[in-house]
Amino acid sequence: MGLLTMTPVERDERFMGMALDEARMAAEEGEVPVGAVIVIGDKVIARCHNRTEALHDVTAHAEMLAITAAAEYLNGKYLDKCSLYVTVEPCAMCAGALGWSQISEIIYGATDNKRGFHTMYSTQQGPLHPKTVVRGGVLEKECAGLMKSFFRSKR
Amino acid sequence: MGLLTMTPVERDERFMGMALDEARMAAEEGEVPVGAVIVIGDKVIARCHNRTEALHDVTAHAEMLAITAAAEYLNGKYLDKCSLYVTVEPCAMCAGALGWSQISEIIYGATDNKRGFHTMYSTQQGPLHPKTVVRGGVLEKECAGLMKSFFRSKR
Repeated sequence: MGLLTMTPVERDERFMGMALDEARMAAEEGEVPVGAVIVIGDKVIARCHNRTEALHDVTAHAEMLAITAAAEYLNGKYLDKCSLYVTVEPCAMCAGALGWSQISEIIYGATDNKRGFHTMYSTQQGPLHPKTVVRGGVLEKECAGLMKSFFRSKR
Repeated sequence: MGLLTMTPVERDERFMGMALDEARMAAEEGEVPVGAVIVIGDKVIARCHNRTEALHDVTAHAEMLAITAAAEYLNGKYLDKCSLYVTVEPCAMCAGALGWSQISEIIYGATDNKRGFHTMYSTQQGPLHPKTVVRGGVLEKECAGLMKSFFRSKR
C-alpha cells in the first residue's frame, strides 16, 4: 500500500500499529507496555517504548524517549511539524514535555483516567501549545487490552 | 563549618547556593539559568543545570537531568529519601517527573507564575506524591535576579 493512497484512518492505524509493536516489546521486557512513534509527514523519525525499569529512571517514558530521539534526528528541539502516536494517553510529565516541544498533533490509543494528563490539569489543553491538536481512541481496544493483561499478570 | 552543626536555614542556603552555582554555569552557556541539586542526608548525589540548548532537547531541564543522575547513583528509580534544591519553581513536566520519583522534599528559590507547576495543575499538590513536602523562597532574590538579568540580556 502506497503511503500517499492511505486514508486518514489507515494512516492512524498504521502508525498506531507501530506504536503497539513497541508497546509489545516493552511488555516482553517487563515494562509497563506503552509505545510511541513520532512522524513528520509520512516519515517515522522516532520509535520508542517505555524503559523505566531497564534504566531505573522514572523519566524514561516512551514519549520522553521519542521526543529526545526526534529532536536529535531533526537537530532542533521544536517538533511543530510532527505528530506523536502513543498507545496510552500521556501523563502529566509527558504532556509537559510535549508542551515545550510545541508538537503539532498528539494521537493516543487508550485513555488513562488515573494518570492521564486530562485529569491532572486545570485546563483542557493543560501545558500543551495552544495549536496542538489532541485525539484519542485510535486502536483503543488493542492499546487498553495490552495494559490490562500486563497488570493482570503482575497480580 | 561541619554539616552536623548547620541550622536548617544554613543547610538550605548551602545547597541552594550550589544550585545557584549550577544556574550561573547555565547562563554562561547561553541556557536559561536554572540549576538543581539532589541530596540524600547531607550528601550531594546530583548537580545539574539546564541544557536544553546544548542538547537541543526540551526534556533537558536541570531537574530532569538531576532526577536521572540521582537514580543512576542510587541504582534505583525512587528518590523517596532525597531532597531537591532548584533555583526556580519546577514546570509541569518536571513536577510530573518528581511525582513519579516520589521525592521526599522539593525546595525552590524563585516562583514562576507563568510556567511553574502551581499555576498549571487542578490541585495544590498537582502530580506530586501525597507525602512530598514543597517549600519556596530560599535565596529567592538571587535565583530570581539571575533569571531577570538573563532575559534582559536577550532582549
